[in-house]
Amino acid sequence: MTLEVPAEEMEAFLDEVFPQVKGMFGIDHLDEDRLVMRLHSNEQHLRPGGTVSGPAMFSLADVAAYVATMSRIGKEALAVTTNCSIDFMRKPVAGADVIAHAKVLKLGRALSVTDVLLYSDGQPEPVARATLTYSIPPARDAV
Amino acid sequence: MTLEVPAEEMEAFLDEVFPQVKGMFGIDHLDEDRLVMRLHSNEQHLRPGGTVSGPAMFSLADVAAYVATMSRIGKEALAVTTNCSIDFMRKPVAGADVIAHAKVLKLGRALSVTDVLLYSDGQPEPVARATLTYSIPPARDAV
Amino acid sequence: MTLEVPAEEMEAFLDEVFPQVKGMFGIDHLDEDRLVMRLHSNEQHLRPGGTVSGPAMFSLADVAAYVATMSRIGKEALAVTTNCSIDFMRKPVAGADVIAHAKVLKLGRALSVTDVLLYSDGQPEPVARATLTYSIPPARDAV
Amino acid sequence: MTLEVPAEEMEAFLDEVFPQVKGMFGIDHLDEDRLVMRLHSNEQHLRPGGTVSGPAMFSLADVAAYVATMSRIGKEALAVTTNCSIDFMRKPVAGADVIAHAKVLKLGRALSVTDVLLYSDGQPEPVARATLTYSIPPARDAV
Repeated sequence: MTLEVPAEEMEAFLDEVFPQVKGMFGIDHLDEDRLVMRLHSNEQHLRPGGTVSGPAMFSLADVAAYVATMSRIGKEALAVTTNCSIDFMRKPVAGADVIAHAKVLKLGRALSVTDVLLYSDGQPEPVARATLTYSIPPARDAV
Repeated sequence: MTLEVPAEEMEAFLDEVFPQVKGMFGIDHLDEDRLVMRLHSNEQHLRPGGTVSGPAMFSLADVAAYVATMSRIGKEALAVTTNCSIDFMRKPVAGADVIAHAKVLKLGRALSVTDVLLYSDGQPEPVARATLTYSIPPARDAV
Repeated sequence: MTLEVPAEEMEAFLDEVFPQVKGMFGIDHLDEDRLVMRLHSNEQHLRPGGTVSGPAMFSLADVAAYVATMSRIGKEALAVTTNCSIDFMRKPVAGADVIAHAKVLKLGRALSVTDVLLYSDGQPEPVARATLTYSIPPARDAV
Repeated sequence: MTLEVPAEEMEAFLDEVFPQVKGMFGIDHLDEDRLVMRLHSNEQHLRPGGTVSGPAMFSLADVAAYVATMSRIGKEALAVTTNCSIDFMRKPVAGADVIAHAKVLKLGRALSVTDVLLYSDGQPEPVARATLTYSIPPARDAV
């Protein structure tokens, strides 16, 4: 699948549409096959014990699926999350960034489906996996 | 299912274990059959356009399933989210609190399964639904 | 939500479009609010020990969501399953029919979302729960 | 992860525990990293139009996750499906076998999580994806 929007442009676009989470996420890599994003570890996402919370991992998976989808359909398009299933499998390493590896499995006219694996930076085993469906409405209105 | 922990005690317990989200959630109602929780709408959870974000709705569903489970197994127990499936169905009303109605469908020795419906305060149609599985480890160690 | 297709007509329609499972499912009740369907227990759906298999319960949930959706959008429409999350919570009672209680949570122009609870006939606690998304394409082509 | 049970032994074991689906599934490949299984296409799994049905694809994903898990924990163990999320993404090719590629993402003491991608034999794009959680009870009793 060809990219409509390159990585640097995508990062600027994210800051523009989600100013409230500016600086929280970074794009490590983006090409036709895969996307690697990073959740910068900081106090706000922590649970007692210092590990990244479930909701913060959900946010990362959601943003990664959004970026992967938008980079293929273009910034002018609209895409809204309609479904997510997520499995939390291991406790993230305290203090480490969480890295998302995202792959678009389907890009249809009305729906995209993206698989995301989440890792504590530097660890071989995933801490979580998620699959997200984005609805791509034909025009600027609700699904 | 009998409650081990009443609502007021549960609210204090939440502030204690999740100090970073203190004041974000409230317990409207908790009895043997159902739990009603509230996400206080504020700037931090907003997307452009002023509606509550997907991750904030996920957080509410996750906390509601946690509270519903812990109120039945007791505060000394441990419970960690292992799975969530969530469907986002309607755009939340801007500026309105989001209300979670949670029901424990199964409370086993090793797992609980909780259904959660989310509403914009005062609206009849749900904005989202989620099902969460919590693992209840026998002792203080990883799943 | 108003019904486009009444129960008897829906049952005949099922036999027509899915002749290979004729007689496997029955519609106990169908009105604007809810649908009750039945999986007739028989040898083919059994696992060792005599209980209804997971795939048979999935089939029942899938058919129930299909019937609930089609009864609202009309038999001429097209609807295909795009997502299902299902939790198996208790072992079904051997020899008992499985009963599905289905409720359409959202009926949009492009998607329907239906919640289904499954019970062993006569038992108070659900054996499984499922949520299914059906895509409703605008015309007779793939999603 | 080391295999406790090799492929040939696993196939015989399947016929033994699920005699009602004997001949329906085959194991193409099984090693420490991945499992490839096959659903033999036949009349019974067809929808109108000749493609493999959703429930048949669910069955294949479920059996693949079971085989992948059992091959690692041993045939004497017990494992029951507790959760599945599945996305149907493309219409399977009529008359073609469906091939499952399964990977165990987590094998804990109490739970396994397995990712499965399903393909029409010979096609590059997946027709479906699924993630399944199996509960591994400590002894021969229910979860």
